[in-house]
Amino acid sequence: MILETINSPKDLKTLGAEELKILSDEIRETLISTVSVNGGHLAANLCVVELTLALHRVFDSPDDKIIFDVGHQSYVHKLITGRREEFSTLRQTNGISGFPKRSESEHDAFGAGHSSTSVSAAAGIAAANLLCGNDVYTIAVVGDGAFTGGMIYEALNNCADKEKLIIVLNDNDMSISPNVGGMSRYFSKVRTSAKYFSFKNKSKRFFKALPLVGNGLLKFGTAVKNRFKKLVMSQNFFEQFGLSYYGPVDGNDIKHIERVLTEAKDDKKCAVVHVCTTKGKGYKYAEERPDLFHGVSGFDIESGKIKSSGVESFSERFGSIICKYAEEDKRIAAITAAMPDGTGLSEFAKRFPDRFFDVGIAEEHALTFACGLSVGGMIPVFAVYSTFAQRAFDQLIHDAALQNLHVIIALDRAGLVANDGATHHGIFDTAFISEIPNVTLYSPNSFESLEKCFVEALNVQGPVVIRYPKSEDIVCDGFYNARGVSFKDFGEGVENAIITYGRLQENAIEAAETLNNNGRPTRVISLTTLSPLPVEGLIKLLDGIDNIVFAEEGIKNGGVAQRLCAELTERGALCGKRFVIKAIDGIFPDHGSNKDLLSSLSLSPESIVDSLGE
Amino acid sequence: MILETINSPKDLKTLGAEELKILSDEIRETLISTVSVNGGHLAANLCVVELTLALHRVFDSPDDKIIFDVGHQSYVHKLITGRREEFSTLRQTNGISGFPKRSESEHDAFGAGHSSTSVSAAAGIAAANLLCGNDVYTIAVVGDGAFTGGMIYEALNNCADKEKLIIVLNDNDMSISPNVGGMSRYFSKVRTSAKYFSFKNKSKRFFKALPLVGNGLLKFGTAVKNRFKKLVMSQNFFEQFGLSYYGPVDGNDIKHIERVLTEAKDDKKCAVVHVCTTKGKGYKYAEERPDLFHGVSGFDIESGKIKSSGVESFSERFGSIICKYAEEDKRIAAITAAMPDGTGLSEFAKRFPDRFFDVGIAEEHALTFACGLSVGGMIPVFAVYSTFAQRAFDQLIHDAALQNLHVIIALDRAGLVANDGATHHGIFDTAFISEIPNVTLYSPNSFESLEKCFVEALNVQGPVVIRYPKSEDIVCDGFYNARGVSFKDFGEGVENAIITYGRLQENAIEAAETLNNNGRPTRVISLTTLSPLPVEGLIKLLDGIDNIVFAEEGIKNGGVAQRLCAELTERGALCGKRFVIKAIDGIFPDHGSNKDLLSSLSLSPESIVDSLGE
Repeated sequence: MILETINSPKDLKTLGAEELKILSDEIRETLISTVSVNGGHLAANLCVVELTLALHRVFDSPDDKIIFDVGHQSYVHKLITGRREEFSTLRQTNGISGFPKRSESEHDAFGAGHSSTSVSAAAGIAAANLLCGNDVYTIAVVGDGAFTGGMIYEALNNCADKEKLIIVLNDNDMSISPNVGGMSRYFSKVRTSAKYFSFKNKSKRFFKALPLVGNGLLKFGTAVKNRFKKLVMSQNFFEQFGLSYYGPVDGNDIKHIERVLTEAKDDKKCAVVHVCTTKGKGYKYAEERPDLFHGVSGFDIESGKIKSSGVESFSERFGSIICKYAEEDKRIAAITAAMPDGTGLSEFAKRFPDRFFDVGIAEEHALTFACGLSVGGMIPVFAVYSTFAQRAFDQLIHDAALQNLHVIIALDRAGLVANDGATHHGIFDTAFISEIPNVTLYSPNSFESLEKCFVEALNVQGPVVIRYPKSEDIVCDGFYNARGVSFKDFGEGVENAIITYGRLQENAIEAAETLNNNGRPTRVISLTTLSPLPVEGLIKLLDGIDNIVFAEEGIKNGGVAQRLCAELTERGALCGKRFVIKAIDGIFPDHGSNKDLLSSLSLSPESIVDSLGE
Repeated sequence: MILETINSPKDLKTLGAEELKILSDEIRETLISTVSVNGGHLAANLCVVELTLALHRVFDSPDDKIIFDVGHQSYVHKLITGRREEFSTLRQTNGISGFPKRSESEHDAFGAGHSSTSVSAAAGIAAANLLCGNDVYTIAVVGDGAFTGGMIYEALNNCADKEKLIIVLNDNDMSISPNVGGMSRYFSKVRTSAKYFSFKNKSKRFFKALPLVGNGLLKFGTAVKNRFKKLVMSQNFFEQFGLSYYGPVDGNDIKHIERVLTEAKDDKKCAVVHVCTTKGKGYKYAEERPDLFHGVSGFDIESGKIKSSGVESFSERFGSIICKYAEEDKRIAAITAAMPDGTGLSEFAKRFPDRFFDVGIAEEHALTFACGLSVGGMIPVFAVYSTFAQRAFDQLIHDAALQNLHVIIALDRAGLVANDGATHHGIFDTAFISEIPNVTLYSPNSFESLEKCFVEALNVQGPVVIRYPKSEDIVCDGFYNARGVSFKDFGEGVENAIITYGRLQENAIEAAETLNNNGRPTRVISLTTLSPLPVEGLIKLLDGIDNIVFAEEGIKNGGVAQRLCAELTERGALCGKRFVIKAIDGIFPDHGSNKDLLSSLSLSPESIVDSLGE
């Protein structure tokens, strides 16, 4: 295997065309076999094999910095930058990350996991290199999907003067799902209409040859000729930002890519190299359904059948619930930021296409757009992952909450998300959402509770957020539901209380069972409304209980436990009681199985038992 | 006065050209006289007088919705939509707001205060109207400065199919300060090079007339002619997003604006109308220095001399401090999001132009760009208002904190900002910043402390935020400085403690003096490090004190007081003690003087005294 001889990008430089072809095949095989077992991002990596090899042959990492936007497409880069042997541990507990990570390798110049940050980071690195006199290149590799995110434009607006900065537009006409919007249509036009690059060269020759005779031309003269030249030559989208443009280039032709990258190196301006790739390239099932193979939990290589637990998830149940109510209430609209499948909205999109909006990877716009829909009399439901909702923090404050507009956020992937890891855990929402006035925050503790929260959300004033985890239904047998809270006693004459919310309820139950079996009857209290907190109800439920632990699958600082603790202390309700908080305390949890993560965070049933003392 | 007869936009419709001219003059006089006394945004309003009149003549507000981006330029709109008589109360306590506000008038279709949200909101309203069968128009009025903000592009990407949506580009070549970046240069090219609009019409005729004979043309034939047509006709920036483009139009020519707006109404696509205006128009001092007259606190109309307290502000002191240390340490770079003056960086920009970056109204990019600079070996300092830093929440988590990069945020306007009001108060940062792992948060309680914090920030690992208010130096005589905290006893044998931070220290001192005069000796504790909290030091300082109030000029939920209260409770350090939190509890404070606001929020010295009981 040639791949086995590649221990650093240097080892690529001497390979011939035939060897590169074989290496590409080996890399594709490795990608397919590893992701089929470990899960991860397949289609985006299959499409950048040649591009990644070309980049590492033309540039010298780690001196030159190659930055992968979002990081979905960094596996090939990992394989050829010294992580081949660990590649089988991809996304596993203590294994290598599924995303670029500075602490993992000197070749990972800038970490990512959220979209559209790479050009900003690259512009910063390039500016620093210029100031420090380091004569090296900075390269941002950006998918066309990332061009639905506003940050890219903010960065493009600031790149023109960065001469050692190269932006590679990896254009596969896909975001996570098929790409959307005006820019996507524009790229597609450039791709298909013209072999734009060669046409431009041709037209340059044409203008040179133009004799300036004849009816029409004579009238306009040289000034017009120049004006025409300027328009035809300079009106490419990137050139409007003052950047140079090269392309489009065939993304499977290493030689061609290398040639154009080398041209771009000599450009005195920041250069954009437009590379056209095929998402899923080299694995027929992924080529056919790149959306399905964008991120997978594993699959059968032979049949292309994707592994599925077969058990309904919160996302799927949410999808059913919103369809059910949208059928009755024509005001309900749904919005996604490029994730119709992940958020369970595919069915809604099919059944109510007029009321369905995929706005691209644009959480800021999505939320303010929702506010506009609300002003116009609709009930918008924005389904978004907790970690990506961080992008819309200001819009939630400034557009939704301040104007007290009725928008619903279905906050998926709240809490830990296992193998995607640090960039994707939804551990901040409980803190950053509950600090905003006028916002109601629900945390259903079962599918049944999810529907109840949704119905309440339809009728509440102002913005409402419903958070739920990436998981199947939560065990909640025998819980008694009160206002904003649900509880169950394990044993009689309870002395201990475990307060929690969401999926962690299951660990709380297991802890309470253990405690009760050890003769320590315990009450499990599960909050279903996190903001405003049902403080009065909780005071009653804690009456006579002196030993309390709050276990929280979320950040400790500013989280639910601290808020509740302060509210109870202010009211004198914790006098003489012990109150312990177990939460994510000042760290970013890594990737791995949720069970492993919860153990390492002292949120396992055993840790909860321990926290209540002897 | 004609203005006195305008009680609603309807009253404009019958006016003739001469009357409109007189009305425009009257409006400008009113703007100048009111803002000279009350302070506010002058230059942006002077430039949109004719545009606003034209909009209200062509469209029918409130059925048609006119949305002003950022809202700096909404005064003219307020004057002619029934708020003429209240206009003298602009920005005053209980007066009308300096920004569009839904609760203030049915003509304020969507509130604003932060930049680049209008197209998203307008797209939402237009989509809702389409779904609900309301045959009305939605108009977003956007300055060219807002095109440095990414949200606009996210929204443009989703507008093509919205036929009743019109975007008015109010192009005055200025942001708050002179506009920056590639897009600004592009707009400027369109404005100056060509009378683009008329040229395009001319070239249409040219192509029609083109005989397709002669050397060069013959070779290319009809296909090429069509390809040329397509390129020349369709390569305007907005058309690349699939929108129609009209302009540029002279922004002082009401008839011309009205004619083009009327054309745009009939367009089957979302239309962009490019209107060129002059910031400060009609008041010579504002025309000469539109940056100075962007937002002013008041000025002398005759001389154009801007009122100034004459006393150094935290912003100015920060500007001096960063220059002092940048002189010694070449790694220090400064970044602003379009606010070199507001943030005190003008001097730095002059002295260290290579290390100064104005990135436009682009807080998301600014922070990730700073991360890039840090990776490249610089020490970037991003100076930004607290309220606008909300925009960079995800970047602070995902790019800075997760990678533990050494970036410094100088967080200006932390706390209440008086007359700018609800959209601008910096009351969330203490909560949303301290929940993020790895971030150190300082709150200096004097100029001296500001410099100390800055020096510490230069040497701390990871991201550091230094928050300070819009104010002059804070009184701190006789305070004893310890690690992360500063304190002073008023009287001997203290029984009460007032904990606070930042500017509110002054109210705490006043309260403590009153208490001590009434025979109740009191300790004032001022936190200078808010995250991580100096809990152990505080436990010592609270030893023997049973009556504690935490007074916080920030949001209560997830704020410093709640975090501290929880930490103390967990440690059993509040056993038998009374702990009261006075903070901003679940509301958005309005505009007005800070004194009025603090009183209404129960944060006056008197309220603090009261909160400690009898």
